[in-house]
Amino acid sequence: MPTLILLRHGQSQWNLEDRFTGWVDVDLTAQGEAEAKKGGELIKAAGLSIDRCFTSVLTRAIRTSWLALWAAGQTFVPETKDWRLNERHYGGLTGLNKTETAAKHGADQVKVWRRSYDVPPPPLPPGGEFDFAKDRRYAGAVLPDTESLATTLVRVQPYWEAEIAPCLQRGETVLVAAHGNSLRAIVKLLFAVADEAIVGVEIPTGNPLVVELDAALKPTAARYLDADRAQALPAI
Amino acid sequence: MPTLILLRHGQSQWNLEDRFTGWVDVDLTAQGEAEAKKGGELIKAAGLSIDRCFTSVLTRAIRTSWLALWAAGQTFVPETKDWRLNERHYGGLTGLNKTETAAKHGADQVKVWRRSYDVPPPPLPPGGEFDFAKDRRYAGAVLPDTESLATTLVRVQPYWEAEIAPCLQRGETVLVAAHGNSLRAIVKLLFAVADEAIVGVEIPTGNPLVVELDAALKPTAARYLDADRAQALPAI
Repeated sequence: MPTLILLRHGQSQWNLEDRFTGWVDVDLTAQGEAEAKKGGELIKAAGLSIDRCFTSVLTRAIRTSWLALWAAGQTFVPETKDWRLNERHYGGLTGLNKTETAAKHGADQVKVWRRSYDVPPPPLPPGGEFDFAKDRRYAGAVLPDTESLATTLVRVQPYWEAEIAPCLQRGETVLVAAHGNSLRAIVKLLFAVADEAIVGVEIPTGNPLVVELDAALKPTAARYLDADRAQALPAI
Repeated sequence: MPTLILLRHGQSQWNLEDRFTGWVDVDLTAQGEAEAKKGGELIKAAGLSIDRCFTSVLTRAIRTSWLALWAAGQTFVPETKDWRLNERHYGGLTGLNKTETAAKHGADQVKVWRRSYDVPPPPLPPGGEFDFAKDRRYAGAVLPDTESLATTLVRVQPYWEAEIAPCLQRGETVLVAAHGNSLRAIVKLLFAVADEAIVGVEIPTGNPLVVELDAALKPTAARYLDADRAQALPAI
């Protein structure tokens, strides 16, 4: 039966510095690397044989997949990288410290940007330090300049349907190593979570979430491999 | 113009133990990891922008590609893994210590197996510790049970022509992170090296060999990025 493993990357340098990261290609810290390896060890201990891996074009997710596949003894698994699995684009907040942003815009406004389903931050001004249009990994793509969780889902969904779902429909075991919000989008799609509830779904880092699916790709069971660090899951 | 970068993996645990490795999935040592990173740093310093990466299904080559792409700041490059880029299959010598093998079969015979172009070692007996037919990474493939450099080339060539050459023909810069003998096969194909000469071509580990090609994929220039550890190259 189809099995989906969702793995959220661990600590990055900007998590440490409490900055809005989004699409900035910040690397894992040593702790983030250890979280990825631990995720792979849990996959190995669970006896899961991965057929295919998907990740974003951001180093912290890519290296999470690499370290997890290595620790799982499955380096040879085919892997695809795509920007549509990127973290939510944080628009004009990109690169800002969260405390400073709250002081400037007010804590309530920042909370709306961070925790509402469909309110995006102001757009990222073009031509600045974080102008992703110049980055060759996005060549040919029509890029957002800011995203809410809702618009993140709008670009995750077609990728899910075109690339990931067909693998699952063949009965494969698929690892998706990605980010808090691209994984939230997948969870929302799979479990049909309501808009107002999905922002409260917190996927722990480095803790593989294993979702068993039926032939129609409806979840039949879901569990975190590290039960001690599990979070509540949407109802099936 | 098309650019090909060939990167041979560095020290593995069995290099240290002086054992015939072939298709056994032995990992890099810390020194092998450092060689891969150094290769990536050289690629970065040379200003090379990789469009696509190919590697084998063996961990020591895959991790070499990962560590090199990371050190080059190009983790997001699409990567394909295929067994046809594997090291030469060492048949019945697989896993044996080279000194012990020489004591058993005679140093001259071992030299013939190691250094002739087209004399394969005895076949690997099926069902033993190293029966690769049971390994899911080879599912569906018709596998050799031993290989000479000549038969290694016979399985590298169609992969080269079908998968790698088309990327180069589009003008891409392609990294192939692989093994001493699969890289020898590519060098033989590209530079039209004679059978008796190719066994003497030694590609240093962790030292990217950059080959500039014309539109017909004929080499126009070739250089090692670490000139201090360069080896002689075939004439262009």
